[in-house]
Amino acid sequence: MAADKPLTAYALNCSLKPSSADEKSSTDRMLSEILSALGKHGVTSEAPVRVLDHDVKPGVLSDMGDGDEWPALREQIIAADIFVLGLPIWMGQPSSVAKRVLERLDAFLGETDDRGRMPAAGKVALVAIVGNEDGAHACHAACFQSLNDVGFTIPSNAGLYWVGEAMGSVNFVDLLETPEKVAGMIEMAASDAAHLATLLKGEPYPGVKQ
Amino acid sequence: MAADKPLTAYALNCSLKPSSADEKSSTDRMLSEILSALGKHGVTSEAPVRVLDHDVKPGVLSDMGDGDEWPALREQIIAADIFVLGLPIWMGQPSSVAKRVLERLDAFLGETDDRGRMPAAGKVALVAIVGNEDGAHACHAACFQSLNDVGFTIPSNAGLYWVGEAMGSVNFVDLLETPEKVAGMIEMAASDAAHLATLLKGEPYPGVKQ
Amino acid sequence: MAADKPLTAYALNCSLKPSSADEKSSTDRMLSEILSALGKHGVTSEAPVRVLDHDVKPGVLSDMGDGDEWPALREQIIAADIFVLGLPIWMGQPSSVAKRVLERLDAFLGETDDRGRMPAAGKVALVAIVGNEDGAHACHAACFQSLNDVGFTIPSNAGLYWVGEAMGSVNFVDLLETPEKVAGMIEMAASDAAHLATLLKGEPYPGVKQ
Amino acid sequence: MAADKPLTAYALNCSLKPSSADEKSSTDRMLSEILSALGKHGVTSEAPVRVLDHDVKPGVLSDMGDGDEWPALREQIIAADIFVLGLPIWMGQPSSVAKRVLERLDAFLGETDDRGRMPAAGKVALVAIVGNEDGAHACHAACFQSLNDVGFTIPSNAGLYWVGEAMGSVNFVDLLETPEKVAGMIEMAASDAAHLATLLKGEPYPGVKQ
Repeated sequence: MAADKPLTAYALNCSLKPSSADEKSSTDRMLSEILSALGKHGVTSEAPVRVLDHDVKPGVLSDMGDGDEWPALREQIIAADIFVLGLPIWMGQPSSVAKRVLERLDAFLGETDDRGRMPAAGKVALVAIVGNEDGAHACHAACFQSLNDVGFTIPSNAGLYWVGEAMGSVNFVDLLETPEKVAGMIEMAASDAAHLATLLKGEPYPGVKQ
Repeated sequence: MAADKPLTAYALNCSLKPSSADEKSSTDRMLSEILSALGKHGVTSEAPVRVLDHDVKPGVLSDMGDGDEWPALREQIIAADIFVLGLPIWMGQPSSVAKRVLERLDAFLGETDDRGRMPAAGKVALVAIVGNEDGAHACHAACFQSLNDVGFTIPSNAGLYWVGEAMGSVNFVDLLETPEKVAGMIEMAASDAAHLATLLKGEPYPGVKQ
Repeated sequence: MAADKPLTAYALNCSLKPSSADEKSSTDRMLSEILSALGKHGVTSEAPVRVLDHDVKPGVLSDMGDGDEWPALREQIIAADIFVLGLPIWMGQPSSVAKRVLERLDAFLGETDDRGRMPAAGKVALVAIVGNEDGAHACHAACFQSLNDVGFTIPSNAGLYWVGEAMGSVNFVDLLETPEKVAGMIEMAASDAAHLATLLKGEPYPGVKQ
Repeated sequence: MAADKPLTAYALNCSLKPSSADEKSSTDRMLSEILSALGKHGVTSEAPVRVLDHDVKPGVLSDMGDGDEWPALREQIIAADIFVLGLPIWMGQPSSVAKRVLERLDAFLGETDDRGRMPAAGKVALVAIVGNEDGAHACHAACFQSLNDVGFTIPSNAGLYWVGEAMGSVNFVDLLETPEKVAGMIEMAASDAAHLATLLKGEPYPGVKQ
């Protein structure tokens, strides 16, 4: 039942800053730690991709034409077994960049096969949230719902996060070391995601004859 | 890899009305259709349980003592492979009865085994929402997040729902027949849930040595 | 345009523990500090009322009969100019007790006068949230929406809160002193609520002829 | 106490389509009906502004430099007494364009005067949501919280919306006439917003000495 090829993961960083801003990204740190933990389970991956480094057009089609760089990102999401969506909290809610990514994934709803399965069927999603303070669970909720709506499966313990105390201003990227509870959460999520992705790759959802 | 025993499902109806109110429950109808669809995949179940028929105490422990009837419900959740949480929308949000159920499940966070697995690890959850109008996706979001936080796995297409037009007053239970799109959604969710529960029953999450 | 009588405030504590549990309530501390700050603006009030000390039945009518103690609480909400809803976070979301209160307020939608005004028209609401970690903004969002739906006006800076670091376990009630930022937030909210309630008491919403 | 100058309203349309797409916008229709209803209360306004017709950069500062067209929009928000945020639902949640607008307003938190008042203090906000189906209340919740966080006051009945039946595909802009309930909702919100904005313009929040 084991998958023949190693599992792959693909991580998107929905920071409000492009890489060119040359500021350390808390989301990047969280994503990198997750990809590293997945690596221990044989999951291969490239570095997280910063969405704002690409010209992702607003819209709900898989290709909005006219310089739209979403198709290349979309292709990598579809090529991977595990999708890791990473994003910062703003105003207690997911960043607008994350919202744009989710809107582009909305196109999956119209891209089903003859068994009613969307392109994300059989893929496993993790959601990584960072913020100075408050909002992680709300972001998990919004992202789990959106990702599940377009076909992703959410493994046990899929919501990863770190936030500081109310009205605080500490950044995750500046912590001297990752808090033990966060590290443990990452180990568990990686184990669960790798296990579930292996199962689903070996025995895909059968879907329903349309 | 197949499970030896047939899969079982357990459905809770978080209506604001106890059965004694003797009113038809839209949530009940949705849950019954889901259990019936699961049956076609060999999943056995009893009729949905109305939470308000039981004295479920407020709190976040698995047993709040003093006449608390949650332990019996909790035992059935743990005995089943698939948990179907059904609830009506009030004010665009999950019913208070659903919130109480989720709060009681919060205790799972402290009930991990030596591999860090909660009692819901390996169990699959579906969320069924009905309302006169608006609120289903928000209820899915809140429930997916809570259920995932306490260890449930969310299969592809796990959010089931029906709502009417804005400010409408039609009840799902009064529809002459289930809308085709809702019926198709139920078939797909049942197929996905049964498939995923079979996989996870056959090969449980390994967890992480604590 | 000044109101003739002093403004009054009424605070509900939606903790999952009744007073008889004899545990200190973080929500109580937050509410008491808010009422005290309102007092500096001439707003009178009694101590916060613990909802779980009363038998508030599930439902969406103003009186669910049969021992329902909501009518007495409802009467005090209607008698006051400022309503302060206080609640703990559980699973990143409002407590089930808060949800029950909001569901009972839903009845206001059907209790409009001949100008379409609900019983809460002209009343100002503040929302106070406490938790060990994460979830305050999501609770503000859910409560603002529900309270506004049934007619309350939300003054500037109406969302009060304290939460600790991710996965923390510190309780607000155990803090040696209220963090400066929280104290400042309370002062501002009290000033805004008192000002707005004075204006609306002096010149009520005219509503629209039905 | 009456304001000397007529009240003004400013409406932003957070559609995912720029005007150049030359498609009718449901959000536009809803916003236009609201501005028209406000007009009956003496509130003047220009046509709703389509955010995507402007190059609003991602970020959380009032001016992100480098071609950022937000400053011009921000100026008009600050010049108006009533802000009407209009947006379509995607995946049950506010559009990414609306999220970007809210993130840009986040800068208000750092732009307080010597009485702690943000640029939005004393301004009244309405939130108008349209969608084919489901999600309006969740959008109200997210927007009320964000707008209130940055200083706006939310009048009674501030959440306007229309959505169709679950999984439907009817657009508000294509309805032959505005449903009576929606029209009544708009009349009431306009009356409330105009009344509250008049009060707050006449007697601004005093704020708290910093």
